[in-house]
Amino acid sequence: MRVNAYAAPAAGEPLAPTTIERRDVGPDDVLIEIEFAGICHSDIHTVNGDWGPQPFPVVPGHEIVGVVAEVGADVTRHRVGDRVGVGCMVNSCGECANCLGGDEQYCVQGMVATYAGTDRDGSTTQGGYSTHVVVDAGYVLTVPEGIEASAAAPLLCAGITTYSPLRRWGAGPGRRVAVVGLGGLGHMAVKLAHAMGAEVTVLSQSLKKQEDGLRLGADAYFATSDPDTFAELAGRFDLILNTVSAPIDVNAYLSLLAVDGALVNVGAPAEPLAVNAMSLIGGRRTFAGSMIGGIAETQEMLDFCAEHGIGAEVEVITADHVNEAYERVLASDVRYRFVIDAATLR
Amino acid sequence: MRVNAYAAPAAGEPLAPTTIERRDVGPDDVLIEIEFAGICHSDIHTVNGDWGPQPFPVVPGHEIVGVVAEVGADVTRHRVGDRVGVGCMVNSCGECANCLGGDEQYCVQGMVATYAGTDRDGSTTQGGYSTHVVVDAGYVLTVPEGIEASAAAPLLCAGITTYSPLRRWGAGPGRRVAVVGLGGLGHMAVKLAHAMGAEVTVLSQSLKKQEDGLRLGADAYFATSDPDTFAELAGRFDLILNTVSAPIDVNAYLSLLAVDGALVNVGAPAEPLAVNAMSLIGGRRTFAGSMIGGIAETQEMLDFCAEHGIGAEVEVITADHVNEAYERVLASDVRYRFVIDAATLR
Repeated sequence: MRVNAYAAPAAGEPLAPTTIERRDVGPDDVLIEIEFAGICHSDIHTVNGDWGPQPFPVVPGHEIVGVVAEVGADVTRHRVGDRVGVGCMVNSCGECANCLGGDEQYCVQGMVATYAGTDRDGSTTQGGYSTHVVVDAGYVLTVPEGIEASAAAPLLCAGITTYSPLRRWGAGPGRRVAVVGLGGLGHMAVKLAHAMGAEVTVLSQSLKKQEDGLRLGADAYFATSDPDTFAELAGRFDLILNTVSAPIDVNAYLSLLAVDGALVNVGAPAEPLAVNAMSLIGGRRTFAGSMIGGIAETQEMLDFCAEHGIGAEVEVITADHVNEAYERVLASDVRYRFVIDAATLR
Repeated sequence: MRVNAYAAPAAGEPLAPTTIERRDVGPDDVLIEIEFAGICHSDIHTVNGDWGPQPFPVVPGHEIVGVVAEVGADVTRHRVGDRVGVGCMVNSCGECANCLGGDEQYCVQGMVATYAGTDRDGSTTQGGYSTHVVVDAGYVLTVPEGIEASAAAPLLCAGITTYSPLRRWGAGPGRRVAVVGLGGLGHMAVKLAHAMGAEVTVLSQSLKKQEDGLRLGADAYFATSDPDTFAELAGRFDLILNTVSAPIDVNAYLSLLAVDGALVNVGAPAEPLAVNAMSLIGGRRTFAGSMIGGIAETQEMLDFCAEHGIGAEVEVITADHVNEAYERVLASDVRYRFVIDAATLR
């Protein structure tokens, strides 16, 4: 099946319309007619070559929402007409301890990324900036009623990436959670942590987005460019979720943690971060990382969002604006996620 | 009360016999006739000035075991004749959230260190290389029957420093624990983790102490100087307890952790450690620190040791050998803890 898509022909080149081949629907597969695809900062890193060589042409997009158009003979989980989603992975070995434990993202053989990945049959995966995609049913999520399709798309990456560590590190009533950065990931973290019942503080470079932050559910908002912030908030938080990919002063943020507090990175700066052992020892503090979440947990997140009326704040664009959108993401000029209307690709 | 002691007169100078004043026994105090005092690497760092200026003369020693000689009017916890211990702290505010939560070592106002600390009355504390010490009863532990007094002394620092993180990070049956370094702390970690039921691996620079390690309870022993070690053990451990104060390649050790594994530092290298965010994110791994333990947990540890017949491996010395012992500690020539026989100070 030949379908329309937007692809980066080579590292750093603008995306352009093209057509790509989607595989036949196998017995375990689902064919999805894509409605929306979110634009994640990772897409830009990948096509820019920031993360090493890629199998160009690359069709990015791992925040996919659409409607099931066809299912394979053995698929029971999804039916034609269902609204479904696909996130950052489309396959894994299914047999290792991590896969069996519901952590397919940490598959010992490596999860298969939704685009620029090598699938288990050896083919190169292509992402959601496209009209259709064929995915193994085990990696296809159900998008519950009550979340708009466009607002649901970013949940598949930005949502689960923040939901999983918030849950794991116990965000909830009586817990003080700080979110570093109010971008695509950060704005989801604020909404989710607030819905979980935590006291939420945004730590942003400036107070520019303060009004937004409070509207999204934050209880407090501080500028990290103000040196008083670090003195004022010393020892305050149980959990700090760092959504920023730029390098931060880890020790300064660790000093904001209470005893047993955790600073969890979901952004991945390229440079190593300097950590003073005493910053950890002096309060039994933790510096940790977290990468998306497993399939079952992603479904749990979607159900949680539906229950709490949570979607991403999105700006829907036509496919021909994707390169402009990339520039605006790099300039932090988006509140808070671009989503491509895949109907404009047909 | 004027008592005999060994003190460092100034930074880097050899310790020498002296006398110091101990305060009168207040209503909440316990006067302890010291039997044994362990020599901790921290003692050496402190008197060498490695950790900044100190209130010389300094009498080191925070691994103290002795017998109660007198108690204040309000003391109910200890009686004359009881065998007791004192560890790294002799006071704290008792009122902050951390003190109330049993984490006096993280007292918001700062715990009062057993030596070279400033007590709540403004006086400078002096440690256990001495014949007697007066300590608030709330910071005096009961040394249970069944642990030899000399073998009990190092439990008050080396024991609790390793016991606390082993417990907190779930060392027990079905869990794979690695101990980095087989020194004073490391040999206690091996004994304790083994007694907790964990599978224990020692990661040491060489295989020199392999026989000892296995005898102490390790199931396996690897040389970190062998590059194959890191390939062979990749993704293996649930917990790695790093007892080494020299800088380590944190990312290499993080690669030995399973998903959700934790690398916990109890040693505190002076230089910052370089951590790649991806080393954490790529397996939801944790880099953490831990500092001794609270008073209640220290008692729990002593009771655990008595129940399991655990003491430190010690070399008992006379007080006049303390400077020579320091040199041997610095040369890693001790198996595994020097303990001063305080009778030789009388």
